[in-house]
Amino acid sequence: MTATPPAVPDRQRHVEDELVRTVLASFHNTPDARLKELMQGLVRHLHAFIREVRLTEAEWQQAIDFLTATGHLTTDRRQEFVLLSDVLGASMQTINVNYEATAGATEATVVGPFFVEGSPEIALGGDMAAGAPGEPCWVEGTVTDTDGNPVPGARLEVWEADEDGLYDVQRDDGHLTARAHLYTDEQGAYAFWGLTPTPYPIPHDGPVGTLLDKTARSPLRASHLHFMATSPGLRTLVTHIFVEGDSLLGSDAVFGVKDSLVKRFESSPPQPPPTRSRARKHASPQPRSPHQTQKTPSTSLDDCSGRTRRSRCRHCSCSGRSSAAARSGTAHSRTAERRGRWTGR
Amino acid sequence: MTATPPAVPDRQRHVEDELVRTVLASFHNTPDARLKELMQGLVRHLHAFIREVRLTEAEWQQAIDFLTATGHLTTDRRQEFVLLSDVLGASMQTINVNYEATAGATEATVVGPFFVEGSPEIALGGDMAAGAPGEPCWVEGTVTDTDGNPVPGARLEVWEADEDGLYDVQRDDGHLTARAHLYTDEQGAYAFWGLTPTPYPIPHDGPVGTLLDKTARSPLRASHLHFMATSPGLRTLVTHIFVEGDSLLGSDAVFGVKDSLVKRFESSPPQPPPTRSRARKHASPQPRSPHQTQKTPSTSLDDCSGRTRRSRCRHCSCSGRSSAAARSGTAHSRTAERRGRWTGR
Repeated sequence: MTATPPAVPDRQRHVEDELVRTVLASFHNTPDARLKELMQGLVRHLHAFIREVRLTEAEWQQAIDFLTATGHLTTDRRQEFVLLSDVLGASMQTINVNYEATAGATEATVVGPFFVEGSPEIALGGDMAAGAPGEPCWVEGTVTDTDGNPVPGARLEVWEADEDGLYDVQRDDGHLTARAHLYTDEQGAYAFWGLTPTPYPIPHDGPVGTLLDKTARSPLRASHLHFMATSPGLRTLVTHIFVEGDSLLGSDAVFGVKDSLVKRFESSPPQPPPTRSRARKHASPQPRSPHQTQKTPSTSLDDCSGRTRRSRCRHCSCSGRSSAAARSGTAHSRTAERRGRWTGR
Repeated sequence: MTATPPAVPDRQRHVEDELVRTVLASFHNTPDARLKELMQGLVRHLHAFIREVRLTEAEWQQAIDFLTATGHLTTDRRQEFVLLSDVLGASMQTINVNYEATAGATEATVVGPFFVEGSPEIALGGDMAAGAPGEPCWVEGTVTDTDGNPVPGARLEVWEADEDGLYDVQRDDGHLTARAHLYTDEQGAYAFWGLTPTPYPIPHDGPVGTLLDKTARSPLRASHLHFMATSPGLRTLVTHIFVEGDSLLGSDAVFGVKDSLVKRFESSPPQPPPTRSRARKHASPQPRSPHQTQKTPSTSLDDCSGRTRRSRCRHCSCSGRSSAAARSGTAHSRTAERRGRWTGR
């Protein structure tokens, strides 16, 4: 209750303090203790904001209109509120709070508005691009718990924008492309063909786009590939891999970049795609920096036994010819590639 | 950036602080200085809230779902975001900030979600109820500026719920009732027939109603009659009159009650309605407490010359027979009545 600027007279400060007290008291009988904490916290910070900036009624009305427009644009396929949370850094701060910074574990980042349920399943070594335009990219790695034990049968959801900067759901043609799920093998290993990530703008034809425009901010996201790793009894991890050297790493529209998630992508000349056994041959980890696996306390996202999973990703270079390129007959001069090892428990 | 609880390790605190700094910096080039101030203030308080309560991802998702449902329910005739702002006290705090507490001036309160443009005009002494059910109530007063000068031709919008607890727009039958506008005469005076205000619940069949239910709060508003007074070159005032003795004065769902706006309503037996001149005869102010008219610094709501208008309301008893009762032929044992004098500049 100390948010009023010094220039506010005592009498006025008293009126504003009194209202905060009254609103806080109105939540006093909330049966659920956590809901009570959340609502009273929200009230304190919301009122502190209004008082500190001396919000005008016209600005309040603009906020109401903005939220209304955001709500009207939001559908099953366009989540403008998630986008708003993302560009305010609220999504990323929530992730920070839930995945406390821990040496060695792969860090989490935003889920973004484009994850959808019901992605097609691909086999290990399969192609998640499914015809989406872009440069083929071989990706492989291992999921382990934070003690380093492999996690067989872990479900990996992977999704990304194509080289036109669009996710499948933005094309609205009913086809699911550059989106798939697959399962790790008995050694916790996975491998698939995707697309080399390229930059793209978040949807900016709605209220959030207007906000970015008026604040001279770019809607562009740094190039990335989305991952979600789940396994019964283990905590879900949502993260990205970013591309080393991308000029947008320092200005990602949703603040999703973390240094540990930036990976080197290696080019290689077209050649026959690696078999599963060949791919595995290259899979020995070459960490960019030493990591120490450790357990971390954290609230569980799902109804698991409370254990948490953290992951870390490593990268090494190898060569491979894109199966997508082979399929389309296009010659590619560069095939980006990445390997990761996931650890966590 | 001191919102993290003491238990948060330094490394984690650093990660969270760093994100706040990055998000604040992203708004650094905002061309409009006020927008920059608003966005950076919003970011600081939003992040402070998330960090303080250690918001879980499930709670974040609930918030997204809540806002989405609120947006989908909002239409031209149902403003669930205004309702949300109201029950969090944000509307009332915004009004506090814009109408600084000033001895003598009539205080402002929430506009609420039921004001609509295009109300029917009534003549002085006319009936704004227009057939809405309820006990007839005679209302009269004067609009002046804060120096006490009458304001001729001021436009008064008046609206209220009927005795069924519904505003006309909630009946959705296209009829505008218990809602009107009228203009003050050359002495700044006004008078009209309305309905004695009765308690009613705010709409609680949507997300905001669910929130009130889960927090054990009542959706009931204290009985009130809405006023909006406008005049070219003067600041708009939005306020209510509340009914002395109403048991809900201490638990108004939207925190709109201010002591100075609580007025005694007097009963009187049915008798012929007062003529304009009879009504005026009773109009000498009998303030419940001494007021001193004064100018107050404030931000203007509209494109006026920056002068502000404050109003104050006074009440005295007189008798009158309801024109609505006469029209319907119903005998009423009680006719509530109120007189007010509006001052402000």
